[in-house]
Amino acid sequence: MELSEVIKGRRSIRAFKQQDVPEEAVEKLIDAARHAPSAGNIQPWEFVIARKPDTKKKLAQAAHQAFVEEAPVVIVVCADEKRSSRGYGKRGEKLYCIQDTAAATQNILLTAYSLGLGTCWVGAFNEKEAKKVLRTPSGMRPVAMIPVGYPNKTPSERDRRPLSQIIHHDCF
Amino acid sequence: MELSEVIKGRRSIRAFKQQDVPEEAVEKLIDAARHAPSAGNIQPWEFVIARKPDTKKKLAQAAHQAFVEEAPVVIVVCADEKRSSRGYGKRGEKLYCIQDTAAATQNILLTAYSLGLGTCWVGAFNEKEAKKVLRTPSGMRPVAMIPVGYPNKTPSERDRRPLSQIIHHDCF
Repeated sequence: MELSEVIKGRRSIRAFKQQDVPEEAVEKLIDAARHAPSAGNIQPWEFVIARKPDTKKKLAQAAHQAFVEEAPVVIVVCADEKRSSRGYGKRGEKLYCIQDTAAATQNILLTAYSLGLGTCWVGAFNEKEAKKVLRTPSGMRPVAMIPVGYPNKTPSERDRRPLSQIIHHDCF
Repeated sequence: MELSEVIKGRRSIRAFKQQDVPEEAVEKLIDAARHAPSAGNIQPWEFVIARKPDTKKKLAQAAHQAFVEEAPVVIVVCADEKRSSRGYGKRGEKLYCIQDTAAATQNILLTAYSLGLGTCWVGAFNEKEAKKVLRTPSGMRPVAMIPVGYPNKTPSERDRRPLSQIIHHDCF
């Protein structure tokens, strides 16, 4: 699918069909994710593919969002703070690490849409609980949950701030 | 251009032709940026389009990277911490704000490549200096500089960590 069509057509999907998502499709998503740019090509990312009902249930509880559990697959994007910090200290840990994994997440959302899959970027969750569920090593921070499935309901486009409001020439 | 081709073909470009970048193309980049998802659709982003030689020179100095100045256009992506914080407190300010602007940045890099333009995500710069150059209001944080131009030299693909190393099933 054409890039601009993907960027503009993608929506946040919160209702999924029962239909399963093949592992091959999930691998395409992670392959897109790992092609995101990262500071110093450090690639400070790990991806947990949750398919077990019990794992998804606990992730949904950590997010207080029941629909997370209803997706056949939930991808949890984790930021490896240690990896970024080794290269770039505090700025790496607090900024690059988050940016790199967010770029990877955006590649996942776009690629999913191009494959006919729906996703939603879930950022609001209890990290401590999520870490426990995923048994993350120390310094590994879950930063986004992405429920993935075939959309059952597609919301209409949400308003965007106009270009004239967000563009500044040479300075504010 | 096909999405997967864009995701895999994009490179970090650090050498640009003298050829100017039309304003219409820059607007396409920002239009793609504003279609990124954001927590609660808050859209905590502003974009400074630097074209004046003096502005670009000072941005390059803040980044200690001379090539920044050589691009005909430098887009500075700014994160509006106040906007995210109003909606989501500290987590909004320190996490969502960075993620949302990173997703917008990734949309810019991808769209630029599809238009034949080269970009580089520059994250390493002195924020205080950049803020002074851009006269950012308080709570507005420059988080990425993106030099944009027609590529003069395209580097080969960089290594990526294999899928088997970054994928985990249900937990670490």
